[in-house]
Amino acid sequence: MTRTIGTVEQQRIRHTVAFRLRHAAGSPGEAAFLAEAESLAAIPGVEDFEVLRQVGAKNDFAYGISMEFADQAAYDAYNGHPAHVRFVDERWLPEVAEFLEIDYAER
Amino acid sequence: MTRTIGTVEQQRIRHTVAFRLRHAAGSPGEAAFLAEAESLAAIPGVEDFEVLRQVGAKNDFAYGISMEFADQAAYDAYNGHPAHVRFVDERWLPEVAEFLEIDYAER
Repeated sequence: MTRTIGTVEQQRIRHTVAFRLRHAAGSPGEAAFLAEAESLAAIPGVEDFEVLRQVGAKNDFAYGISMEFADQAAYDAYNGHPAHVRFVDERWLPEVAEFLEIDYAER
Repeated sequence: MTRTIGTVEQQRIRHTVAFRLRHAAGSPGEAAFLAEAESLAAIPGVEDFEVLRQVGAKNDFAYGISMEFADQAAYDAYNGHPAHVRFVDERWLPEVAEFLEIDYAER
């Protein structure tokens, strides 16, 4: 699925981030954060958006977000979109205790 | 999607593992490992199986495997299946330098 056009890779990307909140499990703060996170789905270019529970015992993350982009340009546009920048500054940085971003593409 | 029947949670699980091999990128050993990993898709209960490249710059993993199970029982059966146990013992443990398992379910 990877096509190289000029120097830009045209490959679909699944962007995931596993995270743990500073809020207590089941708290109103947690619920408010997760509701706000859902709003990222409305940013242009975001596909297959999911807010998920992390249920494995082999890490300390409690939640995850997964979304897909048609290509790197769509991913870049999302990263720079004002709604994403605002979410990161106003909610993510103050409310997330730990996180790990993992991005996948087809081989 | 979570239903509790008795004490067993009936929830679909997306099992993912990000990893980095001891083999050099582009080496025959890497290719052989990835080909063998694909064979895990044939284990009963495994759905939506993917071997993926990790393309993000924010971690040291080079690959990932993602698969889904209809419920915890299917996941447990996979873990205990002789083909999985053999793959872990003979290929995963000697050939994988670092890995992280992250499992997701719907909220």
